[in-house]
Amino acid sequence: MQTEKKRIMSGMRPTGKLHIGHYLGVLTNWIKFQDEYNSYFLVADWHALTTKYDRTAELKQNIVDVVMDWIASGIDPKKSVIYLQSLVPETSELHLLLSMITPQNWVERDPTLKDMIKILRGNKEGEEQDVSGIVSYGLMGYPVLQTADIIQFNASLVPVGKDQLAHLEISRDITKRFNHIYKTDFFMEPQPKLTQIPLLKGIDGQKMGKSFNNDIKISDTEEDTAKKLMRAITDRSRIKRTDPGHPDQCEVVCPYYKIFADEQTVQKQRYECENAIRGCADCKRELIEIVNDYFRTVRQKRKELENNPDYVHEVIKTGSDKARESAGKILKQVKTIMQMY
Amino acid sequence: MQTEKKRIMSGMRPTGKLHIGHYLGVLTNWIKFQDEYNSYFLVADWHALTTKYDRTAELKQNIVDVVMDWIASGIDPKKSVIYLQSLVPETSELHLLLSMITPQNWVERDPTLKDMIKILRGNKEGEEQDVSGIVSYGLMGYPVLQTADIIQFNASLVPVGKDQLAHLEISRDITKRFNHIYKTDFFMEPQPKLTQIPLLKGIDGQKMGKSFNNDIKISDTEEDTAKKLMRAITDRSRIKRTDPGHPDQCEVVCPYYKIFADEQTVQKQRYECENAIRGCADCKRELIEIVNDYFRTVRQKRKELENNPDYVHEVIKTGSDKARESAGKILKQVKTIMQMY
Repeated sequence: MQTEKKRIMSGMRPTGKLHIGHYLGVLTNWIKFQDEYNSYFLVADWHALTTKYDRTAELKQNIVDVVMDWIASGIDPKKSVIYLQSLVPETSELHLLLSMITPQNWVERDPTLKDMIKILRGNKEGEEQDVSGIVSYGLMGYPVLQTADIIQFNASLVPVGKDQLAHLEISRDITKRFNHIYKTDFFMEPQPKLTQIPLLKGIDGQKMGKSFNNDIKISDTEEDTAKKLMRAITDRSRIKRTDPGHPDQCEVVCPYYKIFADEQTVQKQRYECENAIRGCADCKRELIEIVNDYFRTVRQKRKELENNPDYVHEVIKTGSDKARESAGKILKQVKTIMQMY
Repeated sequence: MQTEKKRIMSGMRPTGKLHIGHYLGVLTNWIKFQDEYNSYFLVADWHALTTKYDRTAELKQNIVDVVMDWIASGIDPKKSVIYLQSLVPETSELHLLLSMITPQNWVERDPTLKDMIKILRGNKEGEEQDVSGIVSYGLMGYPVLQTADIIQFNASLVPVGKDQLAHLEISRDITKRFNHIYKTDFFMEPQPKLTQIPLLKGIDGQKMGKSFNNDIKISDTEEDTAKKLMRAITDRSRIKRTDPGHPDQCEVVCPYYKIFADEQTVQKQRYECENAIRGCADCKRELIEIVNDYFRTVRQKRKELENNPDYVHEVIKTGSDKARESAGKILKQVKTIMQMY
């Protein structure tokens, strides 16, 4: 007896080339999902408009860059549905229908939205300033659109980190409200799929972010990676090469070893640092090799994709068609349940 | 040289069978537009959901009733595009795109919306209580959705009464903002087409409205019309049949004469009322004939439509397909201008 796999959906805004923090924090999880679930991975270009409606010139390239990074990293279009939000107009229709049953004050309480509004209104402390413009009606509807993204495939799992559980609450609430109003049990409440998101700092020791100019891209060349890692922060208290180092106070380089190097290498590096056998520059040079080795295959694959843009567009189109088909079926049932014409 | 006619668009919510106030106030204007303009007439079922999301059981029949009343009254599907909002999903997509550039505080200032929110929050004085439920995110977006309705055919005239000019302002503002942000002159600002809306009171002398139970339907039988008009308010100061009447203080019957009877009949009625030659009951009996004569052809046509529901559904489908084609072209250009993928 064959039962359909559970569906999982997740997405990213098309912010352009992804960094290795995205790779470790998100993509490695997605790759694991591919075999276990029916996976839907969304490039959320409508969501990008909520804060960047006036910077659309870069949108197309950003979308292609994100998808190339996904595929290069191991998201397999044969196993997963890779799709573009704006190529699935069914989402906008479901969003409109859901908007009619979503109380305005639910929308206003969404934590992600509150953060974005704070940033837009100038309270930018410690936040990536990846937003511009005004608080629009569409930005207010971000939680509703997100709910449409999720429940249009019904029975979706949504990967979230421990601290993001609240983000899913409004989607669960809207789902419950739909079922209640229309006296149905059609929509299954989307369930959180808890994931480990290892924190990878930027080379300056701060949160890694494109706009902080402290990130290493998946698509960086080995030379760029080398240049960036040579600037990475180490142990600020180690002034001279002959001073013993403190790996646990080393802000970037030692943590990177723990993530990218094997256990034996980490032990050796720690010993040599603590005993001033190696200096920070030595450490960085070895780390450059390690990181570049780690991403070599991914980067080769990405190069191939850059040389074959037609294939990338085809993946987006094929995936979006598949997503339309699934979403269309759900939408049709939603309209029947709502007794629309 | 053939230039395309200007486009005009207007619509109604599917509230069910229309009353003769709709006929005089709206439909007679629409009929005039049919030859002069490319006319788009919208049954706004999504708008109905903004306040009646929890009363959808009646939606389908209400839609059919509205369309039958339109056609019976003289809206000609061969001349005009009669369409259903939810059968034109392009509108939801344009609505979503426009939502991204519409400041939240513009939405909040819309006068119609303010009225609806007041009613929902319990300030119901003097207002037709044709709303239910909560203030939803979708209700807040009513002005944005209305803008999408209008500008998706571009260069639209919108018929409004003098006191409704403000309703169009936000659509004009959103249009201007789109053009400004995307450095284009693509959207022409929708222009108001001022119309005369003669006020037809309900039989109790109040504003005519379905929920006030004081209306005469286009589709009422002659017997129902008679029963209702016999209950109509006349001159409250005329106690006895032998008292002289005051046509100018007569609240419903005399005003109806002015609208439905010819000049000669009005003069005669006035004279006989003022001189107590006829009583109010006489007046009503004559008025019943006049009103039933007035609507006889319309009502016959409506009966025919009731016996031919397939034709009505076909009109809705054909019109909605035409609207989709027009709206789809505009949407495609909008996405190009916005540099979407």
